[in-house]
Amino acid sequence: MRIAAAVVGASGYAGGELVRLLDAHPEFDLIWMGAHSRAGETLREVHPHLTGGDRRLALTDATAIPKEVEAAFLALPHGASHQLGHQMAERGAAVFDLGSDYRFDTSARYQSAYGVPHPAGDRLKDWRYGLPELFDVKGARRVALPGCYPTAVLLAAAPLLAAGMATGPVVADCLSGVSGAGRSLRPELLFGQVAEGASAYGVTVHRHRPEMEMGMEMAGVPTQVTFTPHLVPIQRGMLATVTMPAAHPEISREDLLGALGKAYEGRALVEVMEPAPQTRWVAGSARAMVTAFYDAHTKMVIAQTALDNLLKGASAQAVQAANLAFGLDESTGLDRTGWMP
Amino acid sequence: MRIAAAVVGASGYAGGELVRLLDAHPEFDLIWMGAHSRAGETLREVHPHLTGGDRRLALTDATAIPKEVEAAFLALPHGASHQLGHQMAERGAAVFDLGSDYRFDTSARYQSAYGVPHPAGDRLKDWRYGLPELFDVKGARRVALPGCYPTAVLLAAAPLLAAGMATGPVVADCLSGVSGAGRSLRPELLFGQVAEGASAYGVTVHRHRPEMEMGMEMAGVPTQVTFTPHLVPIQRGMLATVTMPAAHPEISREDLLGALGKAYEGRALVEVMEPAPQTRWVAGSARAMVTAFYDAHTKMVIAQTALDNLLKGASAQAVQAANLAFGLDESTGLDRTGWMP
Amino acid sequence: MRIAAAVVGASGYAGGELVRLLDAHPEFDLIWMGAHSRAGETLREVHPHLTGGDRRLALTDATAIPKEVEAAFLALPHGASHQLGHQMAERGAAVFDLGSDYRFDTSARYQSAYGVPHPAGDRLKDWRYGLPELFDVKGARRVALPGCYPTAVLLAAAPLLAAGMATGPVVADCLSGVSGAGRSLRPELLFGQVAEGASAYGVTVHRHRPEMEMGMEMAGVPTQVTFTPHLVPIQRGMLATVTMPAAHPEISREDLLGALGKAYEGRALVEVMEPAPQTRWVAGSARAMVTAFYDAHTKMVIAQTALDNLLKGASAQAVQAANLAFGLDESTGLDRTGWMP
Amino acid sequence: MRIAAAVVGASGYAGGELVRLLDAHPEFDLIWMGAHSRAGETLREVHPHLTGGDRRLALTDATAIPKEVEAAFLALPHGASHQLGHQMAERGAAVFDLGSDYRFDTSARYQSAYGVPHPAGDRLKDWRYGLPELFDVKGARRVALPGCYPTAVLLAAAPLLAAGMATGPVVADCLSGVSGAGRSLRPELLFGQVAEGASAYGVTVHRHRPEMEMGMEMAGVPTQVTFTPHLVPIQRGMLATVTMPAAHPEISREDLLGALGKAYEGRALVEVMEPAPQTRWVAGSARAMVTAFYDAHTKMVIAQTALDNLLKGASAQAVQAANLAFGLDESTGLDRTGWMP
Repeated sequence: MRIAAAVVGASGYAGGELVRLLDAHPEFDLIWMGAHSRAGETLREVHPHLTGGDRRLALTDATAIPKEVEAAFLALPHGASHQLGHQMAERGAAVFDLGSDYRFDTSARYQSAYGVPHPAGDRLKDWRYGLPELFDVKGARRVALPGCYPTAVLLAAAPLLAAGMATGPVVADCLSGVSGAGRSLRPELLFGQVAEGASAYGVTVHRHRPEMEMGMEMAGVPTQVTFTPHLVPIQRGMLATVTMPAAHPEISREDLLGALGKAYEGRALVEVMEPAPQTRWVAGSARAMVTAFYDAHTKMVIAQTALDNLLKGASAQAVQAANLAFGLDESTGLDRTGWMP
Repeated sequence: MRIAAAVVGASGYAGGELVRLLDAHPEFDLIWMGAHSRAGETLREVHPHLTGGDRRLALTDATAIPKEVEAAFLALPHGASHQLGHQMAERGAAVFDLGSDYRFDTSARYQSAYGVPHPAGDRLKDWRYGLPELFDVKGARRVALPGCYPTAVLLAAAPLLAAGMATGPVVADCLSGVSGAGRSLRPELLFGQVAEGASAYGVTVHRHRPEMEMGMEMAGVPTQVTFTPHLVPIQRGMLATVTMPAAHPEISREDLLGALGKAYEGRALVEVMEPAPQTRWVAGSARAMVTAFYDAHTKMVIAQTALDNLLKGASAQAVQAANLAFGLDESTGLDRTGWMP
Repeated sequence: MRIAAAVVGASGYAGGELVRLLDAHPEFDLIWMGAHSRAGETLREVHPHLTGGDRRLALTDATAIPKEVEAAFLALPHGASHQLGHQMAERGAAVFDLGSDYRFDTSARYQSAYGVPHPAGDRLKDWRYGLPELFDVKGARRVALPGCYPTAVLLAAAPLLAAGMATGPVVADCLSGVSGAGRSLRPELLFGQVAEGASAYGVTVHRHRPEMEMGMEMAGVPTQVTFTPHLVPIQRGMLATVTMPAAHPEISREDLLGALGKAYEGRALVEVMEPAPQTRWVAGSARAMVTAFYDAHTKMVIAQTALDNLLKGASAQAVQAANLAFGLDESTGLDRTGWMP
Repeated sequence: MRIAAAVVGASGYAGGELVRLLDAHPEFDLIWMGAHSRAGETLREVHPHLTGGDRRLALTDATAIPKEVEAAFLALPHGASHQLGHQMAERGAAVFDLGSDYRFDTSARYQSAYGVPHPAGDRLKDWRYGLPELFDVKGARRVALPGCYPTAVLLAAAPLLAAGMATGPVVADCLSGVSGAGRSLRPELLFGQVAEGASAYGVTVHRHRPEMEMGMEMAGVPTQVTFTPHLVPIQRGMLATVTMPAAHPEISREDLLGALGKAYEGRALVEVMEPAPQTRWVAGSARAMVTAFYDAHTKMVIAQTALDNLLKGASAQAVQAANLAFGLDESTGLDRTGWMP
């Protein structure tokens, strides 16, 4: 008895990955795909790399989504999912929102990131923050998936802070591939502006910083995060390099790897490894790779995560959360191999 | 009366850039080019993008370098320049060594980076560290050019530390294009291993860290540096992101930009700017771009440098130092425009 | 009852893809992996993007390959597979050779490509040329897989020539990603030599030209091929643009697409499409995309194939042939979706 | 006495290159820069890689262009330059139009490319087609610069056809970097749509084909051209591969190279070479590289040009034409070295 699923916002990069993952999933049955400006087009026109290209994208509207949908995946721009997400949940579907509308725990925190109060702040408490390795989502019905940067930073740093091996404040310098910015038509995403370049953006003001600090709090390790995101000319991939003071100078690299290993024991989608992880090793893969180093000279811990920003940083993490929400093994239907070269 | 120049190690990337720069220089006259394994080949075979391709690379040997050479530029692998550099200097030529043999001030510091004592440690004091914006090289006869990473980190951080606006310890996360690793045949430099990837390397053990700390000391601002270099899939370009505690919480971004502006006033090859600099803006350019941000939330200063690792990070900085050594304007013959797109 | 399989040459790019495909295959059971210079290393060291990384590569030797292996996949350099391929076949295994040793039908043709007689020319007749959409491999026990360029050119051109819509001579200009050249350490494969470049190579002398002309003959449409391969800075992907005189001027694009559609009716791994196919649409996919245009001004037919050189151009085609050889559906275990973006 | 120059359309890629080239030119003095949507912005905002960033782009209008302008360079979209070009010429300025408005010799030919009659067809005869190696522009006052593809194809093929070594029909498969499409905001130019891809576009319908056939006629070698342009993921660079029947089978490669050498004897901006030229060798360079091969098996000639589409394919060719128009040496102020790596 397969679970009927819908993807709303199927024309974007994350939406396309949701379609690809759900098409290949043994337990979910993708029965509806919605879009906005590209509604009416076939999947072939929108995502020529996918199969089943004759399927057509419907115009997104709560009433158009079939009643039998039990799992709704929303991959919509900021601000576009809070109403539909609520409606779908009230209708009884489990909702997995890849957007930022329900990621924050309080309206105040939301306001600190977005400058305006949350449009429905009293509902925030109904949503769980879906980073399954750190926070339980088993049986959840309303899951707000984390941003790609917070996923990467929290996976690397939280277990080491929690194990008492590192302390704040945290410096998180992160690299992102271009697909993280979505498929929208912006000058800074042109090939001619991206290729052969590297630069920071959103320095001191990126909205993922408050989300990271919330995640640290939720994980019991409140700390400040100085966060500088960088754009590098790759399509997919995210690398977080997190530098934090060691809690005491006797720490060894073995201790750090041990703590990470313990934190992720039995988890299929996070792999602890010795070499510095490369984004190429996880492009196309649902798994994240994490490691940590100890700099005995400066007494600093350097923890790293590499992940595919569209998979463990977005769509695969949503499917992972859905798997857990529906009582499946967390990696069901998710490919852990990458695509190198 | 032009200055006769030689490039030793002309077959590598930095050597090729030296040839290109000196060919176009109004005061230097490139009269000799040497190589090792590619000696005997024409310039066209080795660097098909250059002009004057019929010129042939000579086998490098001190006795083969014409006596009239007044300026010798050495672009050799680590360990290969200390003897030749000394010989050329003793012969009366001004020597500009792009390698690391004479970068350190003491044999002890050299040993901390390389694990072995310097082969001629008593000569170290004869060499000047050629980062002209921070350390005077006017009239110098023996100049050891800094590494690309130390150049980038020191340009961003030293003036802010010196101005009492930031303090250590310093976290330096840097991105480098692939040409920084030279032209050697190593598996990790294959297109198939680099493209669509991003990763750190040399974490906690990179030899440029002791050099950075020496530079900080020389600039009067001794501090520890936690340094993590990353490789990104671009040919040229380096971006340093340096995070340091603010000296006091009342600092503003204007203060930081003001301090940088004052430090680089009148210098042609460092430009202070407001937007976060992109490596694309300086690819092909002899100038570095620097900026700084203040994160009022965490009380951290984030300073950045973007430069072309082969130019301001290597060959153009060598020519800049040579200009100053010979009493010319520092930017003589150096193009400050970049190549975007 | 799964089929025991071995991959010989598992450390290269094609070998890694074979491991990935067979690991995910519902009917094959990969029980042995061999290598040469990297024998003894774990799969994690050699292909960090794959799973099951603790498996170790054995030293390749016919006697080391377990007797129960029923399907041997050989991904070895030119000249390295003819002996082992023969031995494995004599032992009773079905052999799928991705190399060029048994691709030619006669020793003379082999000599025209390689300049020397085939080392075991009398065996050539025992092997089938494994381009399953054009030549039957059902039940085959010795299959020589085509080169990536011949696969692309033949898929686009042969059906149009066979349908009497185009004639020779054929001009085949092809673009290849860098992984087509394998994982070997050659200067022209360095990132610094590949990125931001495009160039032809092997002009008039590439060894795939005789193979293309053999394939045309086998398909009943003998013709000369002027073949110019180009290298472009992508990891995977191949695009063949084949220009040929129209057989008569009344032809229309619809006729051409119709002939292609008929040729590939019911075939899962070739898709006929209207838009000019992009390599990005098939990167990671086992399927090829083909199209054709008619230039009424010059009376020329322009046919195109896009495929992933490591998949439909190598490893997935080998698995496709193995599927057919063992009586399975040709696309069993092969993912037809791509990885864009 | 320097020549006062203006660049109209300074905000695009070709316009930016014109600014860069004229800033460095010893005889031209850039006194005015115009734009449309970006009028009012500083050069730093529009082209951060250039120097003199405080200069501001004016709103383009014939009356706003200073009367003393003697040389007007127009880098405008199709259809936007025919009026301004005429006005400036009537005012007495020499006009160098990088656009397509005056490229065709007759209104009929223009219509065959654009589907509509030329808006001022009687003026076409006043303009010269500015491919200086093939057609004289000395002393010209109205120069229409060729498209990048016609430049590349004509430079490779026309001398061989004219020397009686090859005949038509011509098959021209060309590769272009993304900057050839300009800086406009179109989905197919996004990094996520370009990187790791290769594809043909405009097959059978590209507007540069009639221009190529006109150029062949003007060169005395009328022939049909089957032209297939391809987009490859590089910023700059164009490679033309032109395949044509040999005029007779006794031809040798030496003959072909000899004919090219003779055609370009004494020309600074075209270099004949033996190896297949790579676009990387001419990125940033004002020169084109050409070669030719003879395929004795198929009796075909394969001629190639590599050039930088923004330089010899656009802006540098405009400056070259202006040099000749004003009686200067054709390469005055133009750098012939490239930027590799």
